[in-house]
Amino acid sequence: MRILSNQVKKYNGKKVALAGWVQTVRDVGSLVFIIMRDRAGLLQLICKGEAAETARKLSLESSIEVTGIAKVDEKIKLGGVEIQVETLVLVAGSLPKLPVDIAGKTETNFEHRFDHRVIDLRREEPQAIFAVQSTLCNAFREILNKDGFTEIHTPKIIATGTEGGTSLFPVKYFEKQAYLAQSPQFYKQMLVGSGFERVFEIAPVFRAEEHNTPWHLNEYVSLDFEMGFVRDELQVIKQSEKVLKYMLKKVIEKNEKQLKLFNINLKIPKKIPVLKYWDLPKIFESIGKEFAPMSDLSRDHEATLCTYASEKFDSEFVFVNNYPIELRPAYTQPHTKKKYSRGFDLLFSGVEIVSGGQRVHDPAVLEKQLTAKGFNPADFEFYLETFRYGMPPHGGQAFGLERLTARLLKLNNVREATFFPRDRNRVTP
Amino acid sequence: MRILSNQVKKYNGKKVALAGWVQTVRDVGSLVFIIMRDRAGLLQLICKGEAAETARKLSLESSIEVTGIAKVDEKIKLGGVEIQVETLVLVAGSLPKLPVDIAGKTETNFEHRFDHRVIDLRREEPQAIFAVQSTLCNAFREILNKDGFTEIHTPKIIATGTEGGTSLFPVKYFEKQAYLAQSPQFYKQMLVGSGFERVFEIAPVFRAEEHNTPWHLNEYVSLDFEMGFVRDELQVIKQSEKVLKYMLKKVIEKNEKQLKLFNINLKIPKKIPVLKYWDLPKIFESIGKEFAPMSDLSRDHEATLCTYASEKFDSEFVFVNNYPIELRPAYTQPHTKKKYSRGFDLLFSGVEIVSGGQRVHDPAVLEKQLTAKGFNPADFEFYLETFRYGMPPHGGQAFGLERLTARLLKLNNVREATFFPRDRNRVTP
Repeated sequence: MRILSNQVKKYNGKKVALAGWVQTVRDVGSLVFIIMRDRAGLLQLICKGEAAETARKLSLESSIEVTGIAKVDEKIKLGGVEIQVETLVLVAGSLPKLPVDIAGKTETNFEHRFDHRVIDLRREEPQAIFAVQSTLCNAFREILNKDGFTEIHTPKIIATGTEGGTSLFPVKYFEKQAYLAQSPQFYKQMLVGSGFERVFEIAPVFRAEEHNTPWHLNEYVSLDFEMGFVRDELQVIKQSEKVLKYMLKKVIEKNEKQLKLFNINLKIPKKIPVLKYWDLPKIFESIGKEFAPMSDLSRDHEATLCTYASEKFDSEFVFVNNYPIELRPAYTQPHTKKKYSRGFDLLFSGVEIVSGGQRVHDPAVLEKQLTAKGFNPADFEFYLETFRYGMPPHGGQAFGLERLTARLLKLNNVREATFFPRDRNRVTP
Repeated sequence: MRILSNQVKKYNGKKVALAGWVQTVRDVGSLVFIIMRDRAGLLQLICKGEAAETARKLSLESSIEVTGIAKVDEKIKLGGVEIQVETLVLVAGSLPKLPVDIAGKTETNFEHRFDHRVIDLRREEPQAIFAVQSTLCNAFREILNKDGFTEIHTPKIIATGTEGGTSLFPVKYFEKQAYLAQSPQFYKQMLVGSGFERVFEIAPVFRAEEHNTPWHLNEYVSLDFEMGFVRDELQVIKQSEKVLKYMLKKVIEKNEKQLKLFNINLKIPKKIPVLKYWDLPKIFESIGKEFAPMSDLSRDHEATLCTYASEKFDSEFVFVNNYPIELRPAYTQPHTKKKYSRGFDLLFSGVEIVSGGQRVHDPAVLEKQLTAKGFNPADFEFYLETFRYGMPPHGGQAFGLERLTARLLKLNNVREATFFPRDRNRVTP
């Protein structure tokens, strides 16, 4: 039975079997030292005799299987354990020259790394990034399950876009023209209305946006929830804050090693401040920044607000609530304060990581707002129908998984938090 | 603070607030009885005076908010509790005529139900189906996380198909031609090879198949796992059996009420039998069924084998292993017994719910098999590269979530286990 590198400690003096990839080989004459990597970490193998013969011929990144005697000794640098190898078998060889320098001694060009992403992912950093990402997803589901949310799976092939027609990828669906879903927005609202009341989904969304920045992906993973019978958007913000804090707590608990690798001192804010959009001009003025009335926040504005929140409220996170209704999608609930809405964003470390709000539940208001945005309500009949049969007030939000992961770990590019990014130019690997 | 219908018991004599949908209204003169439905179940509301006035005017399926005094009394039919209403507020009215008979007294035409799926989903059966489905997904993730698998998110927009070119939906990806992923097959293998070793994903897959049967969907949810350093396909089968049994166990623990609604006596088989393909002719002969050598199993063959396994091995589940290599995708590991493979299916109650196997890890064999299937290996360079840098023996499998759910609950059509099905004719709602 194969054991993992982090289990060796328990087998001092016993014979064990292991498998993994060859990270380094060091030949010191009669002995050959291998550092082997498996999914749990690194381990030193000491080979002599026949095993040393085999070891000398190994190219880096070959996969191997070994048996040997486990030795536990504090003085051994790599985790205080090593294996005195008895048998060493080459499972699958590797070409001698790797397309990416895994040891990370020389930095490989960004695009080249992503061209050879499978090899690139063998580095320590990506392994850590996706360990954190896995924690985030599990925590999101855990807290929402606990709070009575049902997991849903909504269609990604759709007949009509949710946010506007320009950023849709067209799909040929047999004889019909269809599109890829930009978000599960309509469907999660419909499922609130169909009696589930509280729903969540973790699934891919697709945006045909021409942007090609370090913070855009054309396919990304959206962490959505939506809840019924809410009083207003503040109740959604409260749930959003609760979910986020739980996710951060779990990362701190489970990913100490990974946070250390990236030098991250993750702090859970006591309370995430909620700024009202109509107070922004005053705030920007006090900092000496220009801000055009009723305009969208630029990347620079977002960064400024994060610094402001950090200094004033000791929170790297900040909600901006009540955006002008003009700037939000047609399904956003208008505020009683004219021209404003019950839509919010959550900014973190200079980037928008959540978009949410209370939604319209009155079908007449919804039709009016769809028309005002230039849509034909008839195209949305499948969605509008929901609202004619007792649709309660409701709201929700969506995290971008890759952005959240990337900002948590202070990565420079959201692609680093994506296994195989899809962007303006890239559909492979 | 709103409470749920199943929490009323704890508040005997106290004032409580609730919200939900009006399922029935019964006017008996001075009193009006409402059965209200929230996400936790049904509850009786007793209205008099002003509340009774409001109640009389309610159309079914309107959403309401009430406050009142909780009364616990064993003699009350509906769960031993009721609310003596003090205030009743109409939150959102419903049109008087519903497109689907939610009470289920008259059966609504199948396609009509799915045209008005949001209303259809308010029935008791769909609510139960998706409660079970949610348990299945959580259990799948739980057991795999426990066994050291990492959750992955692979791209759904891809450059090349995995199983053959005919069943791909084309996507216009800016200037490029791309496709929707038929499965995460290539990517989950690549992530095994990139050092994660053990990975899983729950995500949509897309099949442009012309079939229009009760068991086909053109978009469905695939529960995938893939594991490295396996000896052979039997180790994958073992993991598959372990995962399935854990899922069944969790459904039995958490969904007693739902299983009862569908009259299901769910049994976990002690051991799921594994039939070898080359033994099938003998088995079919013994039952008096025809079976052409080296042919694929028909729906009738699959049903026959399930009955056979049920009678002979007391298992409603049966693995069929070692399909002819001709019948399996190019990435399937060939068996040492010529013409056969290390690919398997899991049949349940007459339907294939899992497809899996050991995969090729030798790049030369893979190129040969791709060519033999009529592919140009150059189109798969992004995938083949993985195999040149120490790719260990590996294998995996995929459950179809909707099929598994539907067969567990003995539903007649896989669409019943899909929130919003996509089939040959349907892209809305």
